[in-house]
Amino acid sequence: MLKGLTRAGLGSIHSDERMIELAAEYGFQAVDLDALGLIERHGIEGARELLLRHNIVIGAIGLPVEWRGAEETFREGLSKLTAAAEAASQLGCRACCTYILPSTDLKAAHFMALATRRLRVCAQLLASYGMKLGLEFVGPHHLRTQWANPFIWTVEETLDWIEAIGERNVGLLYDSYHWYTNGLTTADILKLHADQIVHVHINDAPDVPVEEALDNGRVYPGEGVIDLAGFLHGLHSIGYQGVVAQEILSSAAPTESPEMLTLRSKAGFDKVFAAAAEQDRWQEK
Amino acid sequence: MLKGLTRAGLGSIHSDERMIELAAEYGFQAVDLDALGLIERHGIEGARELLLRHNIVIGAIGLPVEWRGAEETFREGLSKLTAAAEAASQLGCRACCTYILPSTDLKAAHFMALATRRLRVCAQLLASYGMKLGLEFVGPHHLRTQWANPFIWTVEETLDWIEAIGERNVGLLYDSYHWYTNGLTTADILKLHADQIVHVHINDAPDVPVEEALDNGRVYPGEGVIDLAGFLHGLHSIGYQGVVAQEILSSAAPTESPEMLTLRSKAGFDKVFAAAAEQDRWQEK
Amino acid sequence: MLKGLTRAGLGSIHSDERMIELAAEYGFQAVDLDALGLIERHGIEGARELLLRHNIVIGAIGLPVEWRGAEETFREGLSKLTAAAEAASQLGCRACCTYILPSTDLKAAHFMALATRRLRVCAQLLASYGMKLGLEFVGPHHLRTQWANPFIWTVEETLDWIEAIGERNVGLLYDSYHWYTNGLTTADILKLHADQIVHVHINDAPDVPVEEALDNGRVYPGEGVIDLAGFLHGLHSIGYQGVVAQEILSSAAPTESPEMLTLRSKAGFDKVFAAAAEQDRWQEK
Amino acid sequence: MLKGLTRAGLGSIHSDERMIELAAEYGFQAVDLDALGLIERHGIEGARELLLRHNIVIGAIGLPVEWRGAEETFREGLSKLTAAAEAASQLGCRACCTYILPSTDLKAAHFMALATRRLRVCAQLLASYGMKLGLEFVGPHHLRTQWANPFIWTVEETLDWIEAIGERNVGLLYDSYHWYTNGLTTADILKLHADQIVHVHINDAPDVPVEEALDNGRVYPGEGVIDLAGFLHGLHSIGYQGVVAQEILSSAAPTESPEMLTLRSKAGFDKVFAAAAEQDRWQEK
Repeated sequence: MLKGLTRAGLGSIHSDERMIELAAEYGFQAVDLDALGLIERHGIEGARELLLRHNIVIGAIGLPVEWRGAEETFREGLSKLTAAAEAASQLGCRACCTYILPSTDLKAAHFMALATRRLRVCAQLLASYGMKLGLEFVGPHHLRTQWANPFIWTVEETLDWIEAIGERNVGLLYDSYHWYTNGLTTADILKLHADQIVHVHINDAPDVPVEEALDNGRVYPGEGVIDLAGFLHGLHSIGYQGVVAQEILSSAAPTESPEMLTLRSKAGFDKVFAAAAEQDRWQEK
Repeated sequence: MLKGLTRAGLGSIHSDERMIELAAEYGFQAVDLDALGLIERHGIEGARELLLRHNIVIGAIGLPVEWRGAEETFREGLSKLTAAAEAASQLGCRACCTYILPSTDLKAAHFMALATRRLRVCAQLLASYGMKLGLEFVGPHHLRTQWANPFIWTVEETLDWIEAIGERNVGLLYDSYHWYTNGLTTADILKLHADQIVHVHINDAPDVPVEEALDNGRVYPGEGVIDLAGFLHGLHSIGYQGVVAQEILSSAAPTESPEMLTLRSKAGFDKVFAAAAEQDRWQEK
Repeated sequence: MLKGLTRAGLGSIHSDERMIELAAEYGFQAVDLDALGLIERHGIEGARELLLRHNIVIGAIGLPVEWRGAEETFREGLSKLTAAAEAASQLGCRACCTYILPSTDLKAAHFMALATRRLRVCAQLLASYGMKLGLEFVGPHHLRTQWANPFIWTVEETLDWIEAIGERNVGLLYDSYHWYTNGLTTADILKLHADQIVHVHINDAPDVPVEEALDNGRVYPGEGVIDLAGFLHGLHSIGYQGVVAQEILSSAAPTESPEMLTLRSKAGFDKVFAAAAEQDRWQEK
Repeated sequence: MLKGLTRAGLGSIHSDERMIELAAEYGFQAVDLDALGLIERHGIEGARELLLRHNIVIGAIGLPVEWRGAEETFREGLSKLTAAAEAASQLGCRACCTYILPSTDLKAAHFMALATRRLRVCAQLLASYGMKLGLEFVGPHHLRTQWANPFIWTVEETLDWIEAIGERNVGLLYDSYHWYTNGLTTADILKLHADQIVHVHINDAPDVPVEEALDNGRVYPGEGVIDLAGFLHGLHSIGYQGVVAQEILSSAAPTESPEMLTLRSKAGFDKVFAAAAEQDRWQEK
């Protein structure tokens, strides 16, 4: 598994270039960023060289298509998607991800039908660029009633949706926070195959009742109550070899410097990956 | 358009064979029946000869797959579907239909995902037999809250679902009762293309507020308040040339003889088709 | 049916704007052109106004995706397609067409697999813009052996391919020249449904043996040997109501002025449409 | 990886039950057989118990659908497929396989279009039963010209076809003989992901020029010239954990007893698996 960073959790970091530098400096192997922007600023060869020089790969890009609103908005995203996928694939990135809000003001069944068609188009486009689409189920309880009608938030529902979308290149974005807020355990990860997982997010939860864990109330890996050792051990056991990217969503931006926050992230990763390796070894005995 | 019968509305009629005879006798051109049963009783050649002798075609068969319940139940239906489609296609039938209940005890979005996958399989199987799948949106208001969660019941939602299913051979079963209880007009039919409609049901509604029209409280065409002339005129205007089959769902079976009920049905069809033809002529002027 | 023009056959006409003017002046109702270019030069509102003022609709745009070559070339086309489809749909155009060369230097089966995937992506993208994809089978005999391996050129093969592509919005571009060089008759058109046809091309063939009719040896409607009355009568009989666009491919550009050529085209259309109307009337008796 | 047997190579073995016994006796873990027949003879519980008692799993069933001929023949297979898949899935089997003849008397491109549609239906049906469809590319040179037109026979072509079919549950049946006759090496296997492989066949080739290796001229693993150690090492390296089933197609049935042939098979497996393990160890150093 590759250790990765996103800008969520790095405070006032002001560029993807700086994130690449910090990631490299603190021993990370991957970052999630805007591949198209990187190419626009450096050219394809420049962007490749920048990544290569820091020995960093791009973990995933975000899906630049708004599939939750009006049809016109969706359509406008398709042009953005071809550009983003072209850029990302030229830099070797193979994953594009989006998240599923667990409730909606639309009629849930109708929205599911619309979203199924739209994400199928996105998946087909991404397949043309050799990329996968990762769908992130979102677990925090407060979001399930944030909008008028429940949508979906469990792994099972998301896998069923992936079958409904029906394209070969769609899988899960598996985030430790959503795993935790869904009340899942390592055993639930062991039911999966590695090829069902497109991307992984890691972050931790504060010591509050799970029902009260807020989506933007996350803490750094190893600083909270989630069994991240069990999470990583499960992923390792099923053969997942992709990126595990930190994504610390918080209501207030952290005030420490990006350098300090990257160091703190590194300490968190070191701690939970070491604990997971311990479980791996224990299992192999 | 072909005038058709189903057993719903013919009282204590006890066989499809008798329905074929009555349909022929009273000037109908089509019946909806169990094609496989007909072949089991008469052989393929016998069944073809029976239909030919009465100059009757089969309008549609019902989808023998329960796609609303457990996965095992769904799977069991697939064997039935291959047998039913084989039989129906051998007798020249090109339509297979199912209805969509407007509410569900399942989580609506999850159920939509499951149902999308399942109906796609059914549609693909039917396509192998040269058949189409017709989805019947169901309008009566009381059914929208019959189960815990709203599902879908409008034409627009159903068309969006058909796009989500994504197969070439899926269209609408358009029932006058559901058109009426959805508050639609001829103008709504004129927005459609004929090839979006797989099958048509006709029946009438009692003179009660539309919100109180019960799904199993239907009356014979021409005996109620639905603008069936406008309904048929709309279908004719967009070039629909398929079957229009009577389907009178009622809480208590009518007590008249099947012969009297067929005669009554014929009178109803004559009345509303004549009124529609009047509108057609008026339009062409 | 709407009478339409393309630039093929209008000689040295140098702009789509001039084609719109000539089309309007000589009684045509549609043109096939580059919708994106029109918008780039006039803005959306300007382009709409230009069409509206001349009472001209856009029949079809060409598919800006090269699906017959390298994967990179295909991918580059996808961005062009989103831009072209966005432009065309904003101007009310609902058809995008491409042609199928009847032989290929690639291994035929492998190329069919590649092309099936690629055209499925194009079809899905077009569906997002409410557009259809028309596939033009190409009949001239010399092209069947132009490249090393036979591909497909018949209606039946093309319809089977459309089923393999499997998207709801794919149909035929039906060109009278390919109908003729495939040895087809009006009866073959009568086997189709109108919704299987996305667009129609019309042009005529010189009086040479059909095997020697060259793809770029076409003549103006009514000036050759094709039974265009039967062609149009067949299309009318199955309810086709779309555009019939002239497309005169020739090895040497005609030397007459665009005005004279449009007049000549009008004369051809008048002749063959009148003959077809005669057949329609005869049939209705 | 699980060591498996098929009846091809076991001589005059007259029942699947006997194959199960011999497989168990000689240390195999899987057999490929007719799951439906087993259930018909023993009932579901009896069949499960029989397999469990011998600690044998079913590797794969053959696709009971003839997708290479007439449409009627294809359709007849669909009923067989629902029954076969129902049976196989009830016994825990997750793979259903078919082979691709490398040439055809049909027009290659047209046949590819037909076959794409047909195998998509099969794949969707299999998915309903939780099963995968494995496509076996077939390498022997003589079969490439056995029929009039070349079809496909390489891994790349087959993977491209799988993308054209477009269903999530389709992958490769990887047979060592076809790997060898395609001139492939371990490096070619290392380009794949384990989830692209549904099933594996193993057998060896006589010491003749590769162009002369006949499809039904195979020999037992370890008795020929194929680098089976490299083959198995490659599969192990990419994480393949499924069944590797022997399939010795030969023009004349071997005359030894089934017992002797199973023993011979065991010796072959032991030899090549040991050699592969040696390579695995060498790599890990």
